[in-house]
Amino acid sequence: MRVFFCALLLVASAAAAVAATPGKAVDAARRHHRANQQQILAELTDFLAIPNVASDTPNIEKNAAAIVGMFAKRGIEARLLRGEGAPPLVVADVPRKGAKRTIAFYAHYDGQPVDPAQWTSAPWSPEIRGGHLYARSASDDKSPIVAMLAALDALRTAKIAPSINLKFVFEGEEEAGSPHLDHYLDRFAKELSPDAWILCDGPVHQSRRALLYFGARGVTGAELTVYGPLRALHSGHYGNWAPNPLVMLTHLIASMRASDGRILIDGYYDDVVPVSESERAALAKAPAFDEEIRRELALGRTEGSATLNEEILKPALNIRGIAGGHVGARASNSIPTEAHASFDLRLVPAQSPERAQSLVERHIVRRGFHIVREPPSAEVRGAHPRVAKLVWGHGYPAARTPMDSLISKRVIDVAMVATGSEPVLLPSLGGSIPMYLFQRGGKVPVIGVPIVNHDNNQHAANENLRLENLWQGIELFAALFAGM
Amino acid sequence: MRVFFCALLLVASAAAAVAATPGKAVDAARRHHRANQQQILAELTDFLAIPNVASDTPNIEKNAAAIVGMFAKRGIEARLLRGEGAPPLVVADVPRKGAKRTIAFYAHYDGQPVDPAQWTSAPWSPEIRGGHLYARSASDDKSPIVAMLAALDALRTAKIAPSINLKFVFEGEEEAGSPHLDHYLDRFAKELSPDAWILCDGPVHQSRRALLYFGARGVTGAELTVYGPLRALHSGHYGNWAPNPLVMLTHLIASMRASDGRILIDGYYDDVVPVSESERAALAKAPAFDEEIRRELALGRTEGSATLNEEILKPALNIRGIAGGHVGARASNSIPTEAHASFDLRLVPAQSPERAQSLVERHIVRRGFHIVREPPSAEVRGAHPRVAKLVWGHGYPAARTPMDSLISKRVIDVAMVATGSEPVLLPSLGGSIPMYLFQRGGKVPVIGVPIVNHDNNQHAANENLRLENLWQGIELFAALFAGM
Repeated sequence: MRVFFCALLLVASAAAAVAATPGKAVDAARRHHRANQQQILAELTDFLAIPNVASDTPNIEKNAAAIVGMFAKRGIEARLLRGEGAPPLVVADVPRKGAKRTIAFYAHYDGQPVDPAQWTSAPWSPEIRGGHLYARSASDDKSPIVAMLAALDALRTAKIAPSINLKFVFEGEEEAGSPHLDHYLDRFAKELSPDAWILCDGPVHQSRRALLYFGARGVTGAELTVYGPLRALHSGHYGNWAPNPLVMLTHLIASMRASDGRILIDGYYDDVVPVSESERAALAKAPAFDEEIRRELALGRTEGSATLNEEILKPALNIRGIAGGHVGARASNSIPTEAHASFDLRLVPAQSPERAQSLVERHIVRRGFHIVREPPSAEVRGAHPRVAKLVWGHGYPAARTPMDSLISKRVIDVAMVATGSEPVLLPSLGGSIPMYLFQRGGKVPVIGVPIVNHDNNQHAANENLRLENLWQGIELFAALFAGM
Repeated sequence: MRVFFCALLLVASAAAAVAATPGKAVDAARRHHRANQQQILAELTDFLAIPNVASDTPNIEKNAAAIVGMFAKRGIEARLLRGEGAPPLVVADVPRKGAKRTIAFYAHYDGQPVDPAQWTSAPWSPEIRGGHLYARSASDDKSPIVAMLAALDALRTAKIAPSINLKFVFEGEEEAGSPHLDHYLDRFAKELSPDAWILCDGPVHQSRRALLYFGARGVTGAELTVYGPLRALHSGHYGNWAPNPLVMLTHLIASMRASDGRILIDGYYDDVVPVSESERAALAKAPAFDEEIRRELALGRTEGSATLNEEILKPALNIRGIAGGHVGARASNSIPTEAHASFDLRLVPAQSPERAQSLVERHIVRRGFHIVREPPSAEVRGAHPRVAKLVWGHGYPAARTPMDSLISKRVIDVAMVATGSEPVLLPSLGGSIPMYLFQRGGKVPVIGVPIVNHDNNQHAANENLRLENLWQGIELFAALFAGM
């Protein structure tokens, strides 16, 4: 650690004209990753081999320890901040002597649950195929962590000092909805109050150009179960008489959400703040890649009438899953006892999760359902024409940072130098990250700087990282570290 | 075999007044099953321990061999009739010297597919709990086979001869839709042309009173898959833009079938023959057990406005299963690539499976879907706004036998004697059995004489036989054998 900081101090004066430094840092990063490709990939694959579902405590602890180890290897002491019943928050500082500003770089080390049967290679057995590295969290969100570490190595080798105090903050339950991040930011406010946050989550633009985002949609979600007869029934002897829960479920879901994406729930759009003029202007400049993506995904149509960039600024109701009875070889002519659905709501300014949830519930009640939170007894089932069990997950609201603030402009400039072209600017990411928490009531700028490919199967089977994105990400981080 | 027939010949003259014989046969059957309860149950459980899904050829053969063995034990030579690619049809004869009429008793030895995870005890490990025997096909439809054999034993012990030539015909793929029964009845017409058929499938009335049915609904079914993006997508980055196949599926299903059971497909009811006056009169005499069953099943409402007995005389569209994405702990915020549904159609006179299928297809096409039969290529998916894969299973039409024919009246009389009370008479079973095939164009009377309990979880997990029904079934079969 001492050696490293001595080196930084020695080259501190080399951090010359701000405009020049990002370019030098990019060159240094390029030299570094070209010379150390195998070592960087080895560090990443070792990290990806550790299962990382947020609820899997023993493995989550292993992940946190692995990050501490990776920092230690570089002489940097990372700490584990702890909250009760929460995965640890990994925090590390790389101070720049005399720097007044601190920029924190956030990523998360947990990943979405997996269905191993659907993966070509096992989710936690990283495998490179055709220039892509396949593993859960290869993109979302472990590779940014390894890319940042490689960027630090590159600057160190080239004797380039960061231009600001760097803080690294890595969360372990983002995919579970970040239920304790609020608590961490409050409890450890002293060391978690940088001047700005850079969030390294989400994918770059579908054109493979760099992308910066200045907001994120909020999110909440629920598990919904509707009930039929107490025991499964022969469809011939009871069909048309005993209510079929699958039919009830399809009618309920169809009543909530049109096939064109519109949410059919009364009053659902009342709180929505329309997209601003400046945001609309930024969107207009973003490349229109809709046709390419349509082809890539073999879509014969899209929902809604607007472009992808516009559609993801709207509130959304996504059905994540439906299950009940059996299909295919296991289908039998029977009426099942229950039908299940899982859905997520994406929220925009100024929707609140609580209000969205209450509107959904009012809708379900208006459709004749009695809502319960626990599996209903036979008595409850018999007493109501329709019973729905509705259990909400954690949720949080959307957030936005002004695109014309000083720091926003600086990040845009550095990204342009680092990637050699104008980055795509999005007022908001379609996905959800708890940006609103970092903003501390809107006071702290928060900007998203993703590095991974858009076609990464994030959240699904065969998640992958396009290796070219890793190399470009290292260059971009080096430029930000040295050039902010 | 010789000993048995000698015995039959010796007592042939004892088959006295037709009206008296059923009563004597019932007494003989009661004495027999009370004295041999353990042996009868052992024979049944051994039989139930053989897995019997129609597509599981090695086990299906074992079942057929087991039936041949059970007959052989009684000195009766059963034959296996064979059709290409079909489970064998087991046929056995017990002739009555001088008898001119032959009545065939039909049952099936195959069972519905199972989901072992949902069973309390394993589906093919028969277990008695609380007076019920739990196993796949405990009710549907192996116990009638064992009950018939026990009835033969009872008559033999009591030296009572059958009053007619008895023929036993046991099928091995009824639950797969009886795809080869037609072929068997044609090819082996000479030995499969009795004067009447008694079909021993389905449950007795919910009041636990005997039930006779004079018809059955027809059936067909299909597997339906609709398609979303070629790979699963992050719902935040693509939701509202990339079509969600689960949403498409819910809208499609909701458009086909109302929550009150009505089928919303154009022209679907055009071919339906209304229920006749005499059928309506029989229904009016059937006990109304709707309230009891509602309570038993914890139903807060029923579909439709009519009684269960009336509802099952209508055409029905039952959703057997829905699957897509993930629910519960495995739910992830993504848009899945496919959504699946499985459904069955119950048909009434004079609907044909072909016509029903074509109406369903026209409906799906009108809802904007391009129908395919094989998994569609990316090209096909990209070329059509909505693509549905629709694969129909085998199907057959409904059938009815007049309730006022001579043989119908005789069966009603014998059942009354055997069970001590007036049987419930149903113009048609709600379930489907290929009665129309046995009718040979409406010429041969076909009457359903079920013995198993209604609350048997038929077609579902924890299928069971109420043992009391087995004992009563043996008595009923003995009465029919001796009293027709």
